[in-house]
Amino acid sequence: MHVVSDLQWGGRFAQPPDPQLIAFGSSLEDDLVLAPFDVRCSRAHVTAQLEGGVIERPAAEALQAALDFVADEIGSGAFERFARAGAFEDVHGAIDARVRELAPEAGEALHAGRSRNDQVATTLLLYVRDRAESGLRVSSKIARRFLDLAQTALDDRTLLAATTHWQPAQPVLLAFWLLAASAGFERAGRRFAGVAEDALRFAPLGSGALAGSSLPLERDAAARELGFREPSRNALDAVGDRDVALDLLHAAARAVITASRPSEELIVWMTPAFGYAKLGDAAATGSSLMPQKRNPDPFELVRAAAASALGTLTGALASVKGLGLSYHRDLQETKALVIGGTERALAALGAFDAALAHVTFDHDAMTAAAARGFTVATDAADALIARGIPARSAHRFVGEVVAASGSQTFGQNELEVLRANTGLSDLKVPLDPLDSVAAKRTSGSTNPSQIAKAIATARSELDALERRKG
Amino acid sequence: MHVVSDLQWGGRFAQPPDPQLIAFGSSLEDDLVLAPFDVRCSRAHVTAQLEGGVIERPAAEALQAALDFVADEIGSGAFERFARAGAFEDVHGAIDARVRELAPEAGEALHAGRSRNDQVATTLLLYVRDRAESGLRVSSKIARRFLDLAQTALDDRTLLAATTHWQPAQPVLLAFWLLAASAGFERAGRRFAGVAEDALRFAPLGSGALAGSSLPLERDAAARELGFREPSRNALDAVGDRDVALDLLHAAARAVITASRPSEELIVWMTPAFGYAKLGDAAATGSSLMPQKRNPDPFELVRAAAASALGTLTGALASVKGLGLSYHRDLQETKALVIGGTERALAALGAFDAALAHVTFDHDAMTAAAARGFTVATDAADALIARGIPARSAHRFVGEVVAASGSQTFGQNELEVLRANTGLSDLKVPLDPLDSVAAKRTSGSTNPSQIAKAIATARSELDALERRKG
Amino acid sequence: MHVVSDLQWGGRFAQPPDPQLIAFGSSLEDDLVLAPFDVRCSRAHVTAQLEGGVIERPAAEALQAALDFVADEIGSGAFERFARAGAFEDVHGAIDARVRELAPEAGEALHAGRSRNDQVATTLLLYVRDRAESGLRVSSKIARRFLDLAQTALDDRTLLAATTHWQPAQPVLLAFWLLAASAGFERAGRRFAGVAEDALRFAPLGSGALAGSSLPLERDAAARELGFREPSRNALDAVGDRDVALDLLHAAARAVITASRPSEELIVWMTPAFGYAKLGDAAATGSSLMPQKRNPDPFELVRAAAASALGTLTGALASVKGLGLSYHRDLQETKALVIGGTERALAALGAFDAALAHVTFDHDAMTAAAARGFTVATDAADALIARGIPARSAHRFVGEVVAASGSQTFGQNELEVLRANTGLSDLKVPLDPLDSVAAKRTSGSTNPSQIAKAIATARSELDALERRKG
Amino acid sequence: MHVVSDLQWGGRFAQPPDPQLIAFGSSLEDDLVLAPFDVRCSRAHVTAQLEGGVIERPAAEALQAALDFVADEIGSGAFERFARAGAFEDVHGAIDARVRELAPEAGEALHAGRSRNDQVATTLLLYVRDRAESGLRVSSKIARRFLDLAQTALDDRTLLAATTHWQPAQPVLLAFWLLAASAGFERAGRRFAGVAEDALRFAPLGSGALAGSSLPLERDAAARELGFREPSRNALDAVGDRDVALDLLHAAARAVITASRPSEELIVWMTPAFGYAKLGDAAATGSSLMPQKRNPDPFELVRAAAASALGTLTGALASVKGLGLSYHRDLQETKALVIGGTERALAALGAFDAALAHVTFDHDAMTAAAARGFTVATDAADALIARGIPARSAHRFVGEVVAASGSQTFGQNELEVLRANTGLSDLKVPLDPLDSVAAKRTSGSTNPSQIAKAIATARSELDALERRKG
Repeated sequence: MHVVSDLQWGGRFAQPPDPQLIAFGSSLEDDLVLAPFDVRCSRAHVTAQLEGGVIERPAAEALQAALDFVADEIGSGAFERFARAGAFEDVHGAIDARVRELAPEAGEALHAGRSRNDQVATTLLLYVRDRAESGLRVSSKIARRFLDLAQTALDDRTLLAATTHWQPAQPVLLAFWLLAASAGFERAGRRFAGVAEDALRFAPLGSGALAGSSLPLERDAAARELGFREPSRNALDAVGDRDVALDLLHAAARAVITASRPSEELIVWMTPAFGYAKLGDAAATGSSLMPQKRNPDPFELVRAAAASALGTLTGALASVKGLGLSYHRDLQETKALVIGGTERALAALGAFDAALAHVTFDHDAMTAAAARGFTVATDAADALIARGIPARSAHRFVGEVVAASGSQTFGQNELEVLRANTGLSDLKVPLDPLDSVAAKRTSGSTNPSQIAKAIATARSELDALERRKG
Repeated sequence: MHVVSDLQWGGRFAQPPDPQLIAFGSSLEDDLVLAPFDVRCSRAHVTAQLEGGVIERPAAEALQAALDFVADEIGSGAFERFARAGAFEDVHGAIDARVRELAPEAGEALHAGRSRNDQVATTLLLYVRDRAESGLRVSSKIARRFLDLAQTALDDRTLLAATTHWQPAQPVLLAFWLLAASAGFERAGRRFAGVAEDALRFAPLGSGALAGSSLPLERDAAARELGFREPSRNALDAVGDRDVALDLLHAAARAVITASRPSEELIVWMTPAFGYAKLGDAAATGSSLMPQKRNPDPFELVRAAAASALGTLTGALASVKGLGLSYHRDLQETKALVIGGTERALAALGAFDAALAHVTFDHDAMTAAAARGFTVATDAADALIARGIPARSAHRFVGEVVAASGSQTFGQNELEVLRANTGLSDLKVPLDPLDSVAAKRTSGSTNPSQIAKAIATARSELDALERRKG
Repeated sequence: MHVVSDLQWGGRFAQPPDPQLIAFGSSLEDDLVLAPFDVRCSRAHVTAQLEGGVIERPAAEALQAALDFVADEIGSGAFERFARAGAFEDVHGAIDARVRELAPEAGEALHAGRSRNDQVATTLLLYVRDRAESGLRVSSKIARRFLDLAQTALDDRTLLAATTHWQPAQPVLLAFWLLAASAGFERAGRRFAGVAEDALRFAPLGSGALAGSSLPLERDAAARELGFREPSRNALDAVGDRDVALDLLHAAARAVITASRPSEELIVWMTPAFGYAKLGDAAATGSSLMPQKRNPDPFELVRAAAASALGTLTGALASVKGLGLSYHRDLQETKALVIGGTERALAALGAFDAALAHVTFDHDAMTAAAARGFTVATDAADALIARGIPARSAHRFVGEVVAASGSQTFGQNELEVLRANTGLSDLKVPLDPLDSVAAKRTSGSTNPSQIAKAIATARSELDALERRKG
Repeated sequence: MHVVSDLQWGGRFAQPPDPQLIAFGSSLEDDLVLAPFDVRCSRAHVTAQLEGGVIERPAAEALQAALDFVADEIGSGAFERFARAGAFEDVHGAIDARVRELAPEAGEALHAGRSRNDQVATTLLLYVRDRAESGLRVSSKIARRFLDLAQTALDDRTLLAATTHWQPAQPVLLAFWLLAASAGFERAGRRFAGVAEDALRFAPLGSGALAGSSLPLERDAAARELGFREPSRNALDAVGDRDVALDLLHAAARAVITASRPSEELIVWMTPAFGYAKLGDAAATGSSLMPQKRNPDPFELVRAAAASALGTLTGALASVKGLGLSYHRDLQETKALVIGGTERALAALGAFDAALAHVTFDHDAMTAAAARGFTVATDAADALIARGIPARSAHRFVGEVVAASGSQTFGQNELEVLRANTGLSDLKVPLDPLDSVAAKRTSGSTNPSQIAKAIATARSELDALERRKG
């Protein structure tokens, strides 16, 4: 057990720490995922030390070699075992300890000019950048999957009785709904892209505890090595600000909330009453009691993951509310929430994408239902308007026909009544849902030509978005 | 790897599950802590089967023996290794699998008349009851610790310039503040006690998936064995309701928020500017860069734990918002949030209690500061009121003296000016903070006799509260 | 405009307040609803002053008369106009100002021995008690409405293909679902009842700013007059604690979340695909564009109100996180959130109840759907178990029959295959959903006799709950 | 009372709506602030109708005239009275009704080709754009105010014992802290700028209920008139998506959280114990009981506003979690939360700015405290490192000196001990905090030259940010 000796402070202290409090204060389980980013950060700090003349080249080389070794151990899992066997405060302390085991003399120098504060802030930004890129990739992948599904559904001219308030509204093509689902993920991708960009603006490294350093660290070199645009401009802000990390958590939470919306519809569409969609055996689950069950669990779990992500975001924001500007230990919890929330959100997005691959739509069932619920009633009203009847009167004429109808569909009978009531005996209404769809004339409508155009545009925008971040 | 074969369903499925989705859907890491409660629940189900005649005594005995064995393995850690080595959906599946390894034939019968739904609901309630008792205990322990500190501070007559808005308000005894801190934890304890009571009202076991069972299970016997008052009254409600678990999470979050309030004050009181309190070496932490540092980290972490607990509560409540009445897989996330949030909250409360043991108050510094900020100004106004000056005028008279004073203290000079301004040349004001405190005449005031009485009352109420739940 | 002159402080101040900041700091719009409670609180303070000898009887009578007059003005709306015409900090300042207009001399005395702090805390508790009683009443009313619906549905033997994961699970009676819906509101009612009880434990009045008072106020008399059990025991805790108010907000949020769950199901059941339920014209809304629409808006709004209530709870809890023990102005926002959140939640519960009155269930559609989705498959498995086939094998046998079936229903054909596969040629399975329901043997099951018993029990428990709080 | 007749639907309905439900469903109080944006949106719709040939020029002119008239009435307050006197569902219905009063015949046509869905979505985006610009302006104004304060404090060389964990860390210039405070508001401004940009991408107008329209609306012309880049590309997405509005609420909540952080420090700095800062009479408030009080209420209210904003964000995000893609009435609550939360957040930011104008810093008190807490200990350790002592040993050497010191300051005595212990008898340490500050060599440090440079950079970036959005 490496306990007290590995705490990176202590000269002033007369008593050993209370083990319960050390355990409570340790963030190791939360921040182990930062290990590779800390190694990169530590390497850059050595560069800053070396180029500024704080340490000599042999010491720098010994440190870099030790850090390379730790990087390998991280890859192999050996480091994780080492870290867990000790009782470290966090992953940064564990790496520091391991470096000093590997390079006892040079290891002593690693902390010259560096505080845990600027180290944590920098490492976290590297993590944020990496995960923001992952978030962009998975969002884009989901968006494309919806576009591919939309293209197929467009080719098949599969219809959908589109709803508002879950009540039948108007006939659209299923492709139109899939395109709408895709749009949310393009926005989610943009949000992640913005975070990735912000995460590489300013490198905190070299900020020290909060005042900067009186040692001549080459901050520019370190920032460059880590891919940042420039060193941060105010050390106190740099160590106490978690804005980009919170932006990442926000982007992640929003992406899962985005996924929760089509999830809800798919869950209902998979009921026998709707019968619009089916989830393949590889993604559905059964029941331990009821032998006939096929449950759409992944979509339920994604819906719940949205709730969980929302809660984590709330907690992280609450942790910085009313916190002074510089570093406070509260920020350790902020970090844990950002990491935990992001990892879970990315897993949920990946699972959503995987589950989507097992969804099939029932063309016949959807098409059969497309006219139910008087879905072409709006076309009827529009037809009246086009014949010069004021909009509100047109609405009323059609509403009365619907109210009097014994059917669930606006069909030939209803059209006859409407003709009679309005005296427009030659009134034309697209009673067939496919005709209704084709009759749409506005840009962005469910007209097949508009959908085809929108799919193409969406694809090229995703291309541009991904290239930008490549 | 025990994958497909251990899923407790499958007859209907043609394809194996997607491993990514199985991993995403597994709650094993979240619910391992439920293992001992599931064993108790399973034992009670065997009782219900046996007494109802669903299984024979030899099968029941084989099952009970296997469950005893698993209980031992849980105690030794062997079960945890077994569970992690498999790829189980959850702890319930892992225990079921282990039982079938140990008792292959009888094991097949364990699920007769039981669904995962009623099993999870019952196991969770057993957990809730246990943790609510823990929450009550730790809340009560903290409340008592504050009372002990209050008794000592009362004996020492340590003063405090009590603040509102962080501005000096009136002199009180430090014991008075400590008593106020204690009160919040008594309330926290009551909240936990209420949850513990609610958690033993209704046993879901025997509810099946949601309809009850056509097998003659003896639900009364199972409920009794588990310490519930009675079997639940509506199977559909029993499997889909998580109210008591959410009540636990609420109680836990509130208790940590309660702890965050004195934490904030202690953090500020430990600054050199205040110098009211000191945190012992065993609880304070240092800095990797700044050699002089002694930071009050445990109280910062508790403050942040309040934020985190709040977020978890938010997420859990959001997960059930708009969810149909029966079981949905979303409830798996609800469960994970309840468990994770509760465990973290209880750890934070334990750490708060441990850190409190290392706090010492600086009698001299607090006493020296007690008069600063014109803290007896209200006594001066009250003295005027007692002499017949209307309250608002009294307030104005004293305010004007304060505004004109060059000091930070309402002292003899200020009293002379007040006497002159009001013409009450014999006006008496308790200028010494100890006199101010002693001058308080109302019940529940900072008068030492009132504090002594309140400490005694609080102790006897905690006794009663603990006895009730013993 | 009554600005500066009506601020209840000022002697110390040389400059008038910044109007933008006064406007920002005013809570008048948030706390006007407290007006009647403040009047009661002020009356009780006069009693405490009088009985303690702080003021003389004529002054007390003048104050009581003025307060009675204000009470009338509150009833008539005149006070609200008066308060809005001024620029008061809050309702308490407005009432104080009005009292001094009505009783210029005695009015000066009203604040003797009272701080805004203990006044606000007491007034808020009176509000909490009142609204907790309202919450209990409306929860109980909803619970009873569900029980009435359940009794009717039980008499009609309306069936329901109960679902888990929204997939058909087992046949139950609709009454069984309605009973489950009722249960959540009984729990909601209990939560409100607990809050109402806690709200009358301790009267803060007479706590002063935080130290108690050196004036001889008769706190017991004031507490008694207001219906509290006793005066609060620690003045500092009394003025800074908002626990009971936060408990009310929690109870209110939970009640609306409870309402959101059946709302979700009703919304889906009202789709033409399900066709289980219909919302009457008086509660449904239409569309400005689509003439055929009938949307279940009240249930959507209730679902959203649950989200809003959750957010308000989150905000209120966040406002006290890390706040020192005594009064801070942050608590003004806490108060506004408690009041706003509670009022909206009670409105949502009232609307839910009103909308429920317009719901009708389609007996025929529900009954027709009850067998769809192989809902009696579990009965088939149970029948095998009862014949000695181990549970897991029974599950598999039935699962295979379902997988091979070309139908959506477990009917005679499926039974024949099962008989053949198991060799149990005389196997009996209740293929008719009504038989399935009748076959349930456990307490709390969907068996009609169990439902009848549960309705009766629920009614008597609601009686007891309401009587307790009457 | 304009009730039923003003609902924009109804042909299908046989019964009048339940008044309680109409009241519950009305969002008029929440969305009155949208009135001017709805008029602009309606004008653009008339343009689209006219240019597409849906209506004739005289009708268009009559509608535009009526809308101009309503715009005037909104300005004068007359419209608000009209709207409140009716019982409208929302502001859109009220404007529609008023237009039809003013232009009875043409008014009938206003709804041709438009649904409430695309109208609300478009109007909300106009509001979002406007408020995002306001948010950018006020954030920038606060950032500049902090920069101005920083420049003054830099000129005065006011020192600050900068803290981490509220414990003295290192001496910095007060200007450095003010600069850090400014940085957060620059980021807040950027977040608002991003929202403003996103809000003008896509105009939903012409999307109809969700399918587009069969009437030939000129969507391009409408989008152009409203300042959007282009019409939206998918009608279903356009009516159901609230992403940009939620982004605004997020930006607003984050900005207030940003303000809560320096607020907390200022509140503590204004205690007599610290005495670093003072709040002018115009911004401070007093107590109704304690005559001496001067409370920093605006900063407490801002801190609480951060909690409230966080809760509103949580509620709004929860309202869209698991909501199907198209329009659901839940989105009305989302809208109310976005508007309410944004208005309150902007008010809090304005108040923060106003309060800041009344803050003065006490140069002497801050400078006197700058060395307290051994703040130059890190300089001492750095001096040892510069002399070749490994970092961890240097840390230990200094820590031991601090532990043995009887003082609160690292001064000449401590330096002598350090020299003796290390054998470096000529060791130089900047004991004077101003020297410590001047000794900092890294970019972004508290060195005065670095601060001056950072102020200049920050100003030019704010210029660019504001120009971009001008």
